[in-house]
Amino acid sequence: MMPDRVILREVGLRDGIQMAARFLPTERKREWALRLRDAGVAEIELTSFVPPKNVPQFADAAEVAGVIPELTGVVPSALVPNLKGAENALQAGFTHINYVLSISEAHSQSNVRRSTDEAIAEFRRIAALKQTGAGQKMVLGVGLATTFGCTLQGEVDPERVLDVARQIVAGGADEVIVADTVGYGNPAQVRAILPRIVKIADGRRVICHFHDTRGLGLANVLAALEAGVRVFDSSLAGLGGCPFAPGATGNINTEDTAFMLESMGFATGIDIPALLELRRDVETWLGDERYSGAIARAGLPKTYQPVI
Amino acid sequence: MMPDRVILREVGLRDGIQMAARFLPTERKREWALRLRDAGVAEIELTSFVPPKNVPQFADAAEVAGVIPELTGVVPSALVPNLKGAENALQAGFTHINYVLSISEAHSQSNVRRSTDEAIAEFRRIAALKQTGAGQKMVLGVGLATTFGCTLQGEVDPERVLDVARQIVAGGADEVIVADTVGYGNPAQVRAILPRIVKIADGRRVICHFHDTRGLGLANVLAALEAGVRVFDSSLAGLGGCPFAPGATGNINTEDTAFMLESMGFATGIDIPALLELRRDVETWLGDERYSGAIARAGLPKTYQPVI
Repeated sequence: MMPDRVILREVGLRDGIQMAARFLPTERKREWALRLRDAGVAEIELTSFVPPKNVPQFADAAEVAGVIPELTGVVPSALVPNLKGAENALQAGFTHINYVLSISEAHSQSNVRRSTDEAIAEFRRIAALKQTGAGQKMVLGVGLATTFGCTLQGEVDPERVLDVARQIVAGGADEVIVADTVGYGNPAQVRAILPRIVKIADGRRVICHFHDTRGLGLANVLAALEAGVRVFDSSLAGLGGCPFAPGATGNINTEDTAFMLESMGFATGIDIPALLELRRDVETWLGDERYSGAIARAGLPKTYQPVI
Repeated sequence: MMPDRVILREVGLRDGIQMAARFLPTERKREWALRLRDAGVAEIELTSFVPPKNVPQFADAAEVAGVIPELTGVVPSALVPNLKGAENALQAGFTHINYVLSISEAHSQSNVRRSTDEAIAEFRRIAALKQTGAGQKMVLGVGLATTFGCTLQGEVDPERVLDVARQIVAGGADEVIVADTVGYGNPAQVRAILPRIVKIADGRRVICHFHDTRGLGLANVLAALEAGVRVFDSSLAGLGGCPFAPGATGNINTEDTAFMLESMGFATGIDIPALLELRRDVETWLGDERYSGAIARAGLPKTYQPVI
């Protein structure tokens, strides 16, 4: 019997370093991406096409895209905050584009100075690129940030989440990314909303983007697996988190998530020891950041065997 | 509708401090227990009746038992390694006794210098105390250590786990404690074995004792909830872990586990902010130990509300 396959989409090079104190030289970013490829990582969010004045770390986004031809067997993607970013990403050679809009009005305003409806309008302008030569092959993922709650406005209405999901699916999104941006989500919420989003997505990929801020990241993965989700964003060494948000952490940790999935019989293709080796180098490159991860601390069980 | 109730059995005063560098004065242990009571903790493993030369921390076990009459509304219990310990615990005023035997022969020999079968024979001698005056009211919980694997011998045969479970249930165990002693367990294993143990327990309480060594603690809790388990051992600040086992950690963290359960609609009765306050004092008392916990770092969501 073929094992069930789960894809971990590595976001350390994007979510993980966007707040890092040090600028990581382009050459290091390339090495990072190539070693992810060698470790069997199937998809990588490589960079972000935000204005460099907002996030200097991504000033080299177009240069980082130069690694794409070497990423054999890997699906690379880029985050874009708006139409201009999407155009730049396509121009740089990306086909997979991730655009994130926020369900929480407070977060949307704070993040991109737009209402959620304005962000949906911008999504439509990006989706319209598919009608142009540059965007013909575009695969457009759309993230629903703060699906499970917001540190600014608190509760987020699940009906509004579903309403926006319907709008973006109808508007041409190829993938729906359900994001627990601030680590407020719990497995009961995941079980309640994910099956409904999977239904709305109607065969399109649904990707979960969980942060482990309050320790429930892997429990939420388990709940999402039950809903049939088979793609998760995760970050090497659990990198990420915002220096302005005390206690914030990055996405769920790639090594730990891969360990859970492989132990349960899901094939991720990931070579965990290779990731741990990369992690040690990344710690040297980035210096003083917040690194997390149980497997890096405790090691794999001596009984561990990857699937196939 | 009444919310489903889940009991967290606090083991910080036993599992959590057994390897602590400092001896915690009896008066502090009493304060710790009383503040757990005030924070709504329903059950507390208070101490261990091991020979003081093995674990000096528990040299005051009988004195710690002096707090029992003040623990209104709380079920206190004590760990015992053998018949002598059980007799001493009953004598000191405990009715709830936890006896742990190890499924892994290697761990059993290393831990108590007995084979698993010898440990089962000792269990029978303890269970026989029920026929005596001192043991008439005894409630005997029996732990199955290394149910999910062992750092010494590696794989542990699930059929042997079930076989031992049957023997202890037939032999008079009132509770079955399923222990992932070294943090090897994953949710697929939990889903595979827990329903079978629940069936063998035949109405007796089944308690899960998970360590979070490899980050899967709360995912394992989620899987055990599906099997109907409603009692979990957990440790304040995630205290515990063995200084001789690099990367080892304590039990699942009480604050984080309570957060997950309450967020999901399970009533634990636990006042998380009160636990966080106790935790801060415990850190002062114990000094340099390994403390973990996402809620202590990130805080509760602003939307958090305990169940009833």
